[in-house]
Parts: sequence; structure tokens; C-alpha cells
Amino acid sequence: MAGTMGRSDKISILVTGSAGMLGRKLVQRILREGHLGGRQLGELLLADVVATEVPANAPGDTRVFVTDLSQPGAAAELVKSQPQVIFHLAAVVSGEAEADFDKGYRINFDGSRALFEAIRQEGYVPRLVFASSVAVFGGPFPEVIPDSFFTTPLSSYGTQKAMVELLLADYTRRRFLDGVGIRLPTITIRPGKPNKAASGFYSSILREPLNGKEAVLPVDESLRHWFASPRAAIAFLLQAASLDSNILGGRRTLTMPGLSATVGDQLAALQRVAGEETLTLVKREPDAAIAKIVSTWPQSFEASGARALGFVAESTFDEIIAVYLEDEMNEPPRSGG
Amino acid sequence: MAGTMGRSDKISILVTGSAGMLGRKLVQRILREGHLGGRQLGELLLADVVATEVPANAPGDTRVFVTDLSQPGAAAELVKSQPQVIFHLAAVVSGEAEADFDKGYRINFDGSRALFEAIRQEGYVPRLVFASSVAVFGGPFPEVIPDSFFTTPLSSYGTQKAMVELLLADYTRRRFLDGVGIRLPTITIRPGKPNKAASGFYSSILREPLNGKEAVLPVDESLRHWFASPRAAIAFLLQAASLDSNILGGRRTLTMPGLSATVGDQLAALQRVAGEETLTLVKREPDAAIAKIVSTWPQSFEASGARALGFVAESTFDEIIAVYLEDEMNEPPRSGG
Repeated sequence: MAGTMGRSDKISILVTGSAGMLGRKLVQRILREGHLGGRQLGELLLADVVATEVPANAPGDTRVFVTDLSQPGAAAELVKSQPQVIFHLAAVVSGEAEADFDKGYRINFDGSRALFEAIRQEGYVPRLVFASSVAVFGGPFPEVIPDSFFTTPLSSYGTQKAMVELLLADYTRRRFLDGVGIRLPTITIRPGKPNKAASGFYSSILREPLNGKEAVLPVDESLRHWFASPRAAIAFLLQAASLDSNILGGRRTLTMPGLSATVGDQLAALQRVAGEETLTLVKREPDAAIAKIVSTWPQSFEASGARALGFVAESTFDEIIAVYLEDEMNEPPRSGG
Repeated sequence: MAGTMGRSDKISILVTGSAGMLGRKLVQRILREGHLGGRQLGELLLADVVATEVPANAPGDTRVFVTDLSQPGAAAELVKSQPQVIFHLAAVVSGEAEADFDKGYRINFDGSRALFEAIRQEGYVPRLVFASSVAVFGGPFPEVIPDSFFTTPLSSYGTQKAMVELLLADYTRRRFLDGVGIRLPTITIRPGKPNKAASGFYSSILREPLNGKEAVLPVDESLRHWFASPRAAIAFLLQAASLDSNILGGRRTLTMPGLSATVGDQLAALQRVAGEETLTLVKREPDAAIAKIVSTWPQSFEASGARALGFVAESTFDEIIAVYLEDEMNEPPRSGG
């Protein structure tokens, strides 16, 4: 297109949900590298419902939008400069989508649809990376879930993500955008404070003891689930932004690799990394409501499509803890860890 | 609920898409039987974008609505008398949904969502039977598709149906309605004239010769697909309206049984039923556009969940042709088939 040809060789990027945990880490990583897919970073658009703090090393043409995609005209405003890569991370988390049915559909579904439609109306075809979730799956499951397993979500959040995956594939098939969806494992160890996600304890039982604080374990140690570090998640997003999407054919969403581990595996790794006494900070307080939600979650995936494309996650919880120590507590990589 | 307890024991029924082929046949069948799930027919609400012709044997409290569910307030009007069973058949067909992107999403997705939301706002929990389609699947496929296979539609129509399936399950899980989705095979032999569906030739290559007319075969005889008669489809809808939905758990949509057959199987059955000379009326005129669409369609399903619940389709094309002759040409059942 003439309009595209006349522009600089720099790559312009829009991040929705840029004030969230993944959004902030993604922006930090992009700024640190200064390029994406071999092209130097140009315009950077940061959009969220709250004001995104602009990192000190951001380029001059960084723009912050405080906006709600589900509101009329909001999405059109974000894409009118035709950002070439869009990371669509904006969402309310599972707990909130379950507690507020209308808000969940408005933000997670209608907001995404409005973004896709604004791109179609703008009439250009950006790469759009959509952060989906393994919450699109609902049990009963086989022990290891193949890529071809059906999406039968048991939460409104998972339903909304699965609907957007379908929309992403159809908008891509119609050449309205170039979409790649990635189903993220449960991201652990999340830094900072707990959010409303039912999965919060998976992070807090490690994060709080590593910081000398108590944490509550609301479920049994035998509970198995599917994990990756925030660092791995950011690497997934960046790879999805630059991969040759023709390889995907009509199936535009990939289940990302992860680590299948039990709560017991998590605690054993914590003990190895931080010592036996740290375990005494984990208080067992069974919570039937949380146990009921997380018991329906998947335990392990083949993720063969993503693995074949070179997506890689951690293979032990020791590694996941090491990522937290390095990225959040500024500890140097441990040798032999 | 007090409101429900005070009403008559008769069952009230809403049919959306009541002027369509399946809608008309469903209403005829309900009127002929006079009851549903052991309860006598009460109020009958017939809704479509065009005026539904009311059969002569319809009860006095039959009401016809000319309405578009996607318009504000339209769905609320349909459910304000709280019909206890809703057959949601209204949709634009695959060819039209592909040709008109906006109309397809508006009618097939937004219209369905508006209906579900109107039910939620009305605050009662009807059985809602949603007519979905095997178009929710997109190749490549295994030879026989299991119930747990993922939905990766390769048409906007299939995308819209898959999105509504997800919404149906979530509204059901939240107890806003009691939904059962059924994925219908390609319905053959459709009476009357061709519609805009790409699947139209599957009916016309039998229907037209049976009526002494020429028909065009746009694809190869080796093409295999998944079929059931209109009569079987109506039986599926009625069974879905009265089955114990607790059996379904969180997975509310069932792939219906069908007959896996090639175009060659269809023509061989035509020859057996109507004689060799009938075959000369089938003109081979390859159409790459149609061939491309239908080549991505599934060939066969396990449908094990639906079969276990007692759903049954035809097992030969001779039977499917016999249904057409009996139901559309008023021929008595042939002995010996």
C-alpha cells in the first residue's frame, strides 16, 4: 500500500492493557531491545483503562491512552495511526469476569470485537497478537490435552477468550487483520500484590515466603496445573509478533508450552531454593470455593504445534523461581540452581 | 416460581426462524402431535423476519411476530410471556453470511445474544434449543471426528454458530437459561427451491431428478459429507427440547448423528429408487468456487454422546430419499426400500 510504503522503516506498536503486569513487562522488554522482528522501534502506543506509567527510556513518540475499548470510537482512536503490531492484552481477570457478568463480556469480548472492527474499518492489516488463556478449556480432560481438544470453558472469562479466538480467526481469514492467538499458561510467579484471579495463590505461596511473608494455601498439594514465568510469557508474545503466520493456516490460536506441576512440586522447589524454614510461612487454609474453581482447570498440554514453532517454557519450578529472583528481586542468576 | 406455578399445565413454545424450512416442518410436527414432552401444547409464538404462515390446525393462541432479534427490544417482546421452550432456528445461511459479513454477525451472532440476554433480563429459565451446524468444524480433519474435536470454522457462518454455542453454555452455567445446542448435519433432501447455501447441490441433485428436472452437480462424485433428512432434524429438535439436560454437564452442544456418504452414494441410491434414466438429469458442471468451500467440510463424526442419548439419523441414502417421497411428494412408504 502506498501509505505503508511511504512510512519509515521503523515498526510502530500498540499495546492494550499496557498498565497490567504483562503489559508493563512487555514494554520494558521492547524498550530494552529497541527493536522487534529486526526492525527498530518507532511509535509506541500504550493503552489501558488507567494511565500507563511511561518508562524513562521510552522514545519521544510514545503516546499514552487512557481508554476503554468497549466505548464508541475508542478503538478507532487507537488504530488511526495504523500501528503495525498490536499486542492485545487488555482484559478483566477470571475472578472479576465471574463476579461481574456484564463487565466481563463488555471488556473481554465487546472490547476485543471493537478493536478488530476498528482495524477492519481503518482498512489496513496489522499483526495482532491476542493473549488468550488455557481457561478456554474445561474438564473433564485427558491427562495431557492435545492441540485438537475442544474448548468447553467453565468460566465466563474462558468463554469470552474462546469467543475472541473464533473472531480472531475469522477476521484473519477475511484478511481484515493478521491474527495470532496464544493461550498462556498460568503465569507464575506474578510480582506485586494478589489480583482477583482465582489462580492468585499459585504465585503467592512462592512470592510471599521468598519475601519473608506468610502465604495462604487454599488447596491440596496434589493439585496439578500448567505454568510459565512472566519472562516466558513475554517471549511468547514477542515470538508471536514476528512469526510467519502463514504456517498457521486457518488455526490462528496456539496453546503455549508450559510446565505441568503440582502444588507439592512448587513447595519442593521453594524448599530447595530458599530453605526448609521458608515452608513454615505457607499456611494451609482450605477454601472450598477456590478449590472448586481450580479443580476444573487443565493439568497438562501437548502444545505440539507451538513447540514445533520453537516456543519454549521453563521445565522446572526451580527455574521459574530463579526468574522471579532475577527479574523482581535483582538477584544474579544462581549457578547450579 | 409463583408465576410459573399459577399457569396452566400446557406448554408454551417460541420458534424463531419459524418461516424457514426447518421452522415450518417443526411447527407442523408439533401441531400434528399436539403435545411436547408429555404436556399439551398451549401458546405458540412464531417469529421470523417475514410473516410466518399460520397452519390451519394451529391453536387459537398462536401469535405471529415479524421481527429481527438483533433490533433493540425485539427479543424482549418475544419472551415477555415467558415461553417455556424456545427453538432458536433463526439464521442467515452460510452463503449469505459469507457474502455479507456484517449481516451474518448481526443476525446469527448478535440476534442470538440478544435473545439470550432478553431471557436473562426477563428472569426465567426456559429450555432453549439452539440449531447449530457442523460448519463449526474446519479441516484438516481425522477421517471420523470425535466429540472432543476442536471447533476451527472456516466460514463466518461456522464462526458465528461456534460463538453462540459458547454463549449458550455460559448462560446455561450461570442459570440464565437451560440451553441445549445440536449440531445438525447437512439437511437433505431440502424441499422447494435452492437457497444461498453452498450445500444446495446436495439436495438438488436428488430433488430435481425425482421431479423430472435437470440438476447441476458442481463437484466430484468422491466428495464425502454428513447428512440427515429434514424429518430426522425435526426429531433431533424435539428430543433436545425434552431431554434431561443435567446429563450434559457443562458441555451443552451435541454433534448429531448422521449418514456419512459420497455424492456417488447419493446417485447410486437415486438410481435404485428412481431408475437409471433419472441419472441422465444430473449434469456435471464443475464449479471451483463451490468445490473449494465444500472440500473443507467434515466427512464423518462419531457423535457418540448424542447416540448414547438415543438420537438417531438415517443409515442409507435410500431412506433419506424415501423420507422425501413420503413427506414432500405424498408417496406411501415403499416396502423393501
